[in-house]
Amino acid sequence: MCQDCGCGDPDVVPIDVQHRILARNDATAQHNREHLVDDGILCINLMGSPGAGKTAVLEATARACGDSRRLAALAGDLATDHDAERLRVAGIRSRGITTGQACHLDAELVHRALHHFDLGGVDYLFIENVGNLVCPAVYDLGQAANVVALSVTEGEDKPLKYPTMFQKADLVLLTKIDLLRHLPHVQVGKIHDALSRVMPEPRVIPLSSLDDRGFAEWLQWLELRRAELQVPEPA
Amino acid sequence: MCQDCGCGDPDVVPIDVQHRILARNDATAQHNREHLVDDGILCINLMGSPGAGKTAVLEATARACGDSRRLAALAGDLATDHDAERLRVAGIRSRGITTGQACHLDAELVHRALHHFDLGGVDYLFIENVGNLVCPAVYDLGQAANVVALSVTEGEDKPLKYPTMFQKADLVLLTKIDLLRHLPHVQVGKIHDALSRVMPEPRVIPLSSLDDRGFAEWLQWLELRRAELQVPEPA
Repeated sequence: MCQDCGCGDPDVVPIDVQHRILARNDATAQHNREHLVDDGILCINLMGSPGAGKTAVLEATARACGDSRRLAALAGDLATDHDAERLRVAGIRSRGITTGQACHLDAELVHRALHHFDLGGVDYLFIENVGNLVCPAVYDLGQAANVVALSVTEGEDKPLKYPTMFQKADLVLLTKIDLLRHLPHVQVGKIHDALSRVMPEPRVIPLSSLDDRGFAEWLQWLELRRAELQVPEPA
Repeated sequence: MCQDCGCGDPDVVPIDVQHRILARNDATAQHNREHLVDDGILCINLMGSPGAGKTAVLEATARACGDSRRLAALAGDLATDHDAERLRVAGIRSRGITTGQACHLDAELVHRALHHFDLGGVDYLFIENVGNLVCPAVYDLGQAANVVALSVTEGEDKPLKYPTMFQKADLVLLTKIDLLRHLPHVQVGKIHDALSRVMPEPRVIPLSSLDDRGFAEWLQWLELRRAELQVPEPA
């Protein structure tokens, strides 16, 4: 394109600044984690693309749980309190975290939100992260497990194209499977294959928040994780 | 949650570092822009969520253009060369840019890629950004226009929840409209309403990359933008 401009002077990437931010984040996350586990609360960091169906999964989870478990949620978004409102309507004790320009939640934002959030009697705390398949995977929030919502409308190769998100996932919820019959070009086998190439221990639950398929298995997974709760050692 | 930990000591956000990076990015973007405009190439920064259908839009654009225009594309992804390969098969001269951990392209990555990319005879250069509704909006690449692909499967409120992306969009391509008849709960009017609240000059083309609806209007829009090409003043 141009021969005379010289591009041998790369941007200075402030790696040391990134390391300092992440180290501090990890310390706050560990603090969050200890408090949550002490209180017997299973905390799930729910991630996924914008529109992957994260809020709908939580609404359907509340329906499926009924009165058997008490749910709470922190809903992260750049702007608006829409998701927290939807979740409150669904019977989930909820609070929004607006990040402004930030493309992910961090442990400090979660920490501050928890200071103003009554978790008495809560069994599961879902942190619905900002819709994004990249940066949320890098910031530990203090969760017990990472769950990624991946919709069948997103195509088959997302796990390969956004590997870090899926490498760090303990579970993938394959959402919107009710639409599969209208997507003749989407092969679920290819999605499973892509996940198996990236996830250290592939674990996938296909589900539909419209017809509640898959939710019995999802609730069972949550119960098992809650039974295993223990404070992890710092990394 | 905890009363004894003190959270009044916020993370140090290195704002000056961010400003320095963005200023440098803007200078490189302006350099890219001048070269592209000098060569008579309309450069489009195509953004959107993972799975919004960006690559499919470009494949269908190539079909719709036929031999009337020569297309080239840079395809940004964290990993894999999948999109660039798909675009090559579709007849678009293409090159992948893998960003590793980065959630967006920047002007320097584009600049380096253009140094190794023959744009002779090209009319339109599409830069398919990393799938992300947040950070790509902040990094100028040297494009003539920002186009955002938003699929009808992503729900109605994304423009309100990710406002910066849509504030900076010159055009929104509302993709996958062939699926609307299977989404009785999605009201297109609500999507248009949300866009009109956020975009300074709302401009939306509904289209389907499967049945090519909307592509005549999209090609017309591209032609008009190409006719208007001029080097903008630095901000």
